[in-house]
Amino acid sequence: MNPTPPHVYPVWLDGQWRAAQSSSPPFQAINPRTDEALPGSFPVSAWQDLELALASAARAFEELRNVPREQLARFLTDYADRIEHDAETLASTATLETGLPVAPRLREVEIPRTVNQLRQAAGAAADGNWALPTIDTANNIRSCHAAIGPVVVFGPNNFPFAYNAIAGGDFASAIAAGNPVIAKSHPAHPTTTRLLAERCAAAMAAAGLPAATVQLLYHFASADGLRMMADPRVASLGFTGSRHAGVALKAACDAAGKPSYLEMSSVNPVVILPGALAERLDDVVEKFCTSCLMATGQFCTNPGLVILTEGERTEQFIQRVQERFSAAPPGVLLTAGVRESLAAGVAKVVGAGARVMTGGGAAGSNAPVSFPNTLLRISGSEFLENPATFQTEMFGNASLFVIARDTKQIVEIVRSLEGNLTGTIFSAQSSGVDEVDYARVAPHLRQRVGRFNDDKMPTGVIVTAAMNHGGPYPATGHPGFTAVGFPACVRRFSMLQCYDGVRQEHLPPLLQNKNPTGKTWRLIDGGWTQADVPSAPAATA
Amino acid sequence: MNPTPPHVYPVWLDGQWRAAQSSSPPFQAINPRTDEALPGSFPVSAWQDLELALASAARAFEELRNVPREQLARFLTDYADRIEHDAETLASTATLETGLPVAPRLREVEIPRTVNQLRQAAGAAADGNWALPTIDTANNIRSCHAAIGPVVVFGPNNFPFAYNAIAGGDFASAIAAGNPVIAKSHPAHPTTTRLLAERCAAAMAAAGLPAATVQLLYHFASADGLRMMADPRVASLGFTGSRHAGVALKAACDAAGKPSYLEMSSVNPVVILPGALAERLDDVVEKFCTSCLMATGQFCTNPGLVILTEGERTEQFIQRVQERFSAAPPGVLLTAGVRESLAAGVAKVVGAGARVMTGGGAAGSNAPVSFPNTLLRISGSEFLENPATFQTEMFGNASLFVIARDTKQIVEIVRSLEGNLTGTIFSAQSSGVDEVDYARVAPHLRQRVGRFNDDKMPTGVIVTAAMNHGGPYPATGHPGFTAVGFPACVRRFSMLQCYDGVRQEHLPPLLQNKNPTGKTWRLIDGGWTQADVPSAPAATA
Repeated sequence: MNPTPPHVYPVWLDGQWRAAQSSSPPFQAINPRTDEALPGSFPVSAWQDLELALASAARAFEELRNVPREQLARFLTDYADRIEHDAETLASTATLETGLPVAPRLREVEIPRTVNQLRQAAGAAADGNWALPTIDTANNIRSCHAAIGPVVVFGPNNFPFAYNAIAGGDFASAIAAGNPVIAKSHPAHPTTTRLLAERCAAAMAAAGLPAATVQLLYHFASADGLRMMADPRVASLGFTGSRHAGVALKAACDAAGKPSYLEMSSVNPVVILPGALAERLDDVVEKFCTSCLMATGQFCTNPGLVILTEGERTEQFIQRVQERFSAAPPGVLLTAGVRESLAAGVAKVVGAGARVMTGGGAAGSNAPVSFPNTLLRISGSEFLENPATFQTEMFGNASLFVIARDTKQIVEIVRSLEGNLTGTIFSAQSSGVDEVDYARVAPHLRQRVGRFNDDKMPTGVIVTAAMNHGGPYPATGHPGFTAVGFPACVRRFSMLQCYDGVRQEHLPPLLQNKNPTGKTWRLIDGGWTQADVPSAPAATA
Repeated sequence: MNPTPPHVYPVWLDGQWRAAQSSSPPFQAINPRTDEALPGSFPVSAWQDLELALASAARAFEELRNVPREQLARFLTDYADRIEHDAETLASTATLETGLPVAPRLREVEIPRTVNQLRQAAGAAADGNWALPTIDTANNIRSCHAAIGPVVVFGPNNFPFAYNAIAGGDFASAIAAGNPVIAKSHPAHPTTTRLLAERCAAAMAAAGLPAATVQLLYHFASADGLRMMADPRVASLGFTGSRHAGVALKAACDAAGKPSYLEMSSVNPVVILPGALAERLDDVVEKFCTSCLMATGQFCTNPGLVILTEGERTEQFIQRVQERFSAAPPGVLLTAGVRESLAAGVAKVVGAGARVMTGGGAAGSNAPVSFPNTLLRISGSEFLENPATFQTEMFGNASLFVIARDTKQIVEIVRSLEGNLTGTIFSAQSSGVDEVDYARVAPHLRQRVGRFNDDKMPTGVIVTAAMNHGGPYPATGHPGFTAVGFPACVRRFSMLQCYDGVRQEHLPPLLQNKNPTGKTWRLIDGGWTQADVPSAPAATA
C-alpha cells in the first residue's frame, strides 16, 4: 500500500487533495470516438482512503448539525453558478470522455438540468418542505424528516453531469437533507468529475462548510465498496448503475439494516395499441426512433421492449422503424464495456429465438466504439415461453418488438414483466377505439412501473415535484421513492424524527411554533399551512 | 398433509372458513394466570394453506383496483363499530389469553385505541391525504402513492387488539392503502384473533369487498413464512415481534427486492440529568416505576436502559426505585416464552457484570407466569466495555441503570447505542442548570432514536399524525417510516406512481383536475391546496 506517484491525480478527502493510497495501477479514461486513452491518470484507492473518508464523513456529519440550512443552500447555489459559468470547459471535457455531443446534449441540456437540480436542492434545503414537518398542537407532538448521516453516492456512466456522484441528483438530494457525501466517480469520466470537484471545493470553502462535507474517490475494489456499505459510519447509499453491482451493494446495506436507493435496470415496456397506428403511424415511428436512438439509446428510460398487436399496420410500423434504424449511422457508445454488454444482451435475446430485423452482430473492437442500431422481433407466444430472458436489458441502441396475438396476450405479457422505471401505452386519441383494450392493459402495466405515460416515449425525465424516476425492483431498490423531482427525492436520504413533549427551545427550527421561513408548508393539526403555530402550548404549559 | 380434524378451528381463506391443511399437531393458547391450556385447538397450516392465501390475495388485489376507496372506508368504519359493540366479549376473552387486565387496559385503553385506529384508517382511505398527491399542471405530470399489493401482517404477543394482525395498525394501514392482507395471528391469543376475524368477515360481507381482501392463518412453520415472503405474489410485510424472527423475514424480503416494515427490539434509553433529580426526585421515581412496571413492562417502548450521573441524588433515586420494585407484586407475563426470554436476558446482563439491585433469578415454572421485578446496575465504564451485551433487550419488568462518571461518559454511552424506538432526556425545568449537558447529549441520542422525549417516559404512544413509532435498525427495518400515526403509517404499504402526459379520463380520481372529495390536500405547482386544478391542460390540449 503506497501513495500513488506524483503524476496520478490526488483524491479529495477531509478537505484536502491527497495522494491516494493504492496497491493497484492507476487508470485512464478512454475517448470512445478514438478508442485511445485520454491524458491524466487516476488512482484506484485502497481501503486506507475509504477509512479516512468514513472517519472524516462521520465527523463532518456531527459538525453539519450546527450548520444552518441556509448555509447549505448557499453552497448549492454557488456550486450551480460555478458549473454554469464553466459550462463550456466542462462540456468540452465530458464529450471527450463520453462521446456525447457538446451540443445540444451536454451544454444545452444536461448541464442546465444539473444546475437546475442543484438550485432546486438549494430551495429544498432552505424551505424544508421536503421534510414534511407535522405538528399536533394539542399533544405537543411534532415530527419531520431529518438528515440520516453520511451517504455514499455511486454515479453512472451515462450522465456525466446530471447523475454525477459529485454534482447530480443523488448528490444534491443528500446534501439538501444535511448529509455528508462520499462521492464515487464513474471511472469512465474522471476528468469531468475532477473539474466538478474543484468547483465543488471552491463553493464549499466559500460557504464555510465542514471540510469533509463532500469527498471524492475515483475508484476502488468492489470488495472495499461492500465493506464500506457495511460500515456503521455509512448511513445510506445512492447508486445508479448496473444491476449486478447494485444488487451486491444493496445486499450489504440490507444486512446492516440501512436504507439504500438504487436505480438499476429497466426495459421500459411500450404498448402500442392498433388505434394509435391507424391514427398516426408516422408520428409513432418518429417518436419511437428518436427516443430509442437518441444518445445512442443510453438512457435508463430507453424504450427497450415494444409490444404490438399483429396485423398489417404493425408490419408497416416495423418496416418503417427498420428502415430508419438501418439508415441512421450508429452513434458512439460510452465505453467498450457498454458495447460488450450490449452485444452480449443482443446475443442472449437472439440466442433465445428473437429474429434480427436489422443490426445485431459481435462487439467488435474498432473506433469509434459503437454497435449497429439493432431491432429484434419475436411473437407474443415466444416471449411468454421465456419472459425472463426476453427482458434482458440491452443498454444502448437496441429494442425488442413483441408481436402479440391479441389484447389478451398483451395482458399476459405485461403480467410477466419485472419492475420497470416506466411503462407506456400509445392509443387512439381522436376516437375511443382503443379504450377497452387500454382499460384491460393499463392496470397491470401501472402496477409494474414507476412512471406511466400516455402517448409519449419514456425518455425525457422532467425535473418536477410530480416526477417519479423510480419503480418496483429490479428497476430500483424501493418502490416508494423517486430519484428525480424535488422535494420528494430529498426524503430518500433521511430518517423520520419525532419530538414528544419537547420544549420549544429544544426543537429544531422547522418544528418550533414560528414558521422558520414564513413560507414553509407544515401539516398542523391535519391541515397544510404556511402559518405559525397559533399558540405556544409547550412554552405556556 | 391432511385436513385438520373437526374439533380444530378452521382458517379463513378466500372468503371461507376452511379446515386447515396441516401436518403438525394443533396448538392451544395458555392462560398465563393459571398456566393451563384454554379451550379451543388451532391449526398449524401447511404450505397448501399459504399457497391458497397467496393465489386468493393476488386475485383480490386485482379486484380491489375497481373498488372505490369509500367502500374500503365503510368497511373499516363498520369493523370498528363491531369491535366497539362487542368490547366486553373481546376483552374478557383477551384477558384469559394474555393475562392483561380487562380494565382499564383492554376495555378502556386498548380496544378504544384499536377502534380509533380503524376509524382514522377509514378517514385516510376516504380522503387520500396519505398518498401525497402531487400535480405539475404545466407539464401534466402527476403522482401519488398507491396500493402496492398483498401485504402479510404478523401480529405480536403484547397487544391482542391494537397490533393484532387482523385489527391493528399494520392491518388498518395496509387496507387503507388498498391492499389485501394475509394476517398471521400471534399464537398466544388465537381466540381473540378468531373473534376479531368473525367481526371482520361480517363487515367485509356488508361492504361487499372481494372475498380474499382479508385472510387469516393462525400459525405455520418458520420456513413456510420465509417462503411466503419470497413469493412474488406478496408485495410487502408488516411485522411486530422479536428481532430474531424479524431479521429472518426481512432478509427474505430484501433478497426479493420488496419493502418490509418491522418493529423489533428497543431498550429505549432514558438519560436523567442531575438537575431533574434535584428538582423533582419523587416525580421522576413515580414516572419511571409506573412506566417500567405497567403491563409488566411488556411494551416495545419500555424504559429498559436508564443512564444517570453518579452522585448522592442518583443513589437516592436508585434506592427509591429499588424499594418500589421490591414492594410491588410482579405482574403476570404474557407467556412462558416471555418469562424464559426475560430470565435469559437478565442472566446475560448479570453474567456480563451487572449487579442485581432487586429481582433477577431463574425463569421458574409456577403459575401465574411471572418474573420478579428486576433492577440491575452497572457503571458507565463497565457499560462501555461491552455495550452490545448491555443493550440486550429484557422484554418485561426489568431495567438496567447505568451510572456514568460524568456527561462526557454519558455521551460516550449514547454514541455506543444501537437504533431505538425512543430516547428520552429528563432535565431541570425550572432552572437552566442542565441545559449545557442537554445540548451535549441530545444530538447524539436524537440520531439514534425515532421519537425523542423531554421529561416524559417513553411508554404511551399517542395515535396522531405527528407520531413516529419507528427508528433506526434494529428497532425497525427502515428509519423513514412510522408504524403509528395516520396518515403517514399508510404510506408504508404503497408504491409511488407517476402519470406523465396521461389523459384526464385515464387518471385515478385523486389526480384528476377535480378534487375528488372537495377536501383532499394536494401539492399543486408547489403549494398545498384543497382546490381543484384551475384549468384542464390535458383535456384542452
